Amino acid sequence: MDASEMEAVKRGANERLREAGLLLADDEVGRLEVADLGLGEFETTGLALFTYVNNPLYCAKELILFPHQTCPEHRHPPVAGGPGKMETFRCRKGNVWLYVEGDATPNPATQPPEGSREHYTVRREIELNPGEQYTILPNTWHWFKAGPDGAIVSEFSSTSRDESDEFTDPRVVRVPDAG
Amino acid sequence: MDASEMEAVKRGANERLREAGLLLADDEVGRLEVADLGLGEFETTGLALFTYVNNPLYCAKELILFPHQTCPEHRHPPVAGGPGKMETFRCRKGNVWLYVEGDATPNPATQPPEGSREHYTVRREIELNPGEQYTILPNTWHWFKAGPDGAIVSEFSSTSRDESDEFTDPRVVRVPDAG
Repeated sequence: MDASEMEAVKRGANERLREAGLLLADDEVGRLEVADLGLGEFETTGLALFTYVNNPLYCAKELILFPHQTCPEHRHPPVAGGPGKMETFRCRKGNVWLYVEGDATPNPATQPPEGSREHYTVRREIELNPGEQYTILPNTWHWFKAGPDGAIVSEFSSTSRDESDEFTDPRVVRVPDAG
Repeated sequence: MDASEMEAVKRGANERLREAGLLLADDEVGRLEVADLGLGEFETTGLALFTYVNNPLYCAKELILFPHQTCPEHRHPPVAGGPGKMETFRCRKGNVWLYVEGDATPNPATQPPEGSREHYTVRREIELNPGEQYTILPNTWHWFKAGPDGAIVSEFSSTSRDESDEFTDPRVVRVPDAG
């Protein structure tokens, strides 16, 4: 993704946040993060994020997903003497299907991206619509995919240490400053 | 405040959240907390709150203030071997004047409630409008007051232990389950 494509994604993500009533200050729009995770297929696999705060005690972000976009399977392992990041996802707009460890849901609403299915192992489905939330325990595998209108998801969590995240897909590159 | 007044406040708070695009599920509306802090003057001093999550690692809430309503001066002392609650306030709608420790702001935009001014000691003013935020360090005094249209403020924080809060006004009663 070149710089002008990146700027277009940031503008689009900001517009989606604004439509959800979640305003960013002018100087915050440039701090939106566009995570394509090194896969080079951002429209399919990736997400945009805005980090409100990330300190040694807690973290809060907005996750912005475009229609049918998938955040690939990962987990937050123990780090720095702590249990690993624990996080609560609350859907604000659109809808998202979240997949976590546990018994596979029969007839799931959606599937991992074409061509990458072997890198997705957990299949317990939780659908989140606006006003619904779910908490993911530390060090457990999860992935999520937005519905046809995309999704805005607030993430409340313990401290984020993205460079420690483990992805099932070995092709994923999570750069440390990408949220 | 009797039960029917309490219900009316919850309905009003839910309507304000909804106008800000922050939807509660039907079963969450009853979990809105109405904190009049034992002062019996809720329209002047108090607030409504909704707690999304409060666990041993982090906490997230919405604070709903009615026009010109004040949350009285308090601090979050060290507790349970930790440094005390640290919190980030992000304004979503309306505006709020936050007062924290430091040099008093000349000509502040507003004042503590009439009749209670001796119970307010910090005077450094920070105005928060939508898209603006401020982080309050543990164990430091702070209070805040909504502007003429009220305010919705998202609070991201470390674990909340309300029963440990210290208020400057000795008349305040903070019941443990009131957020």
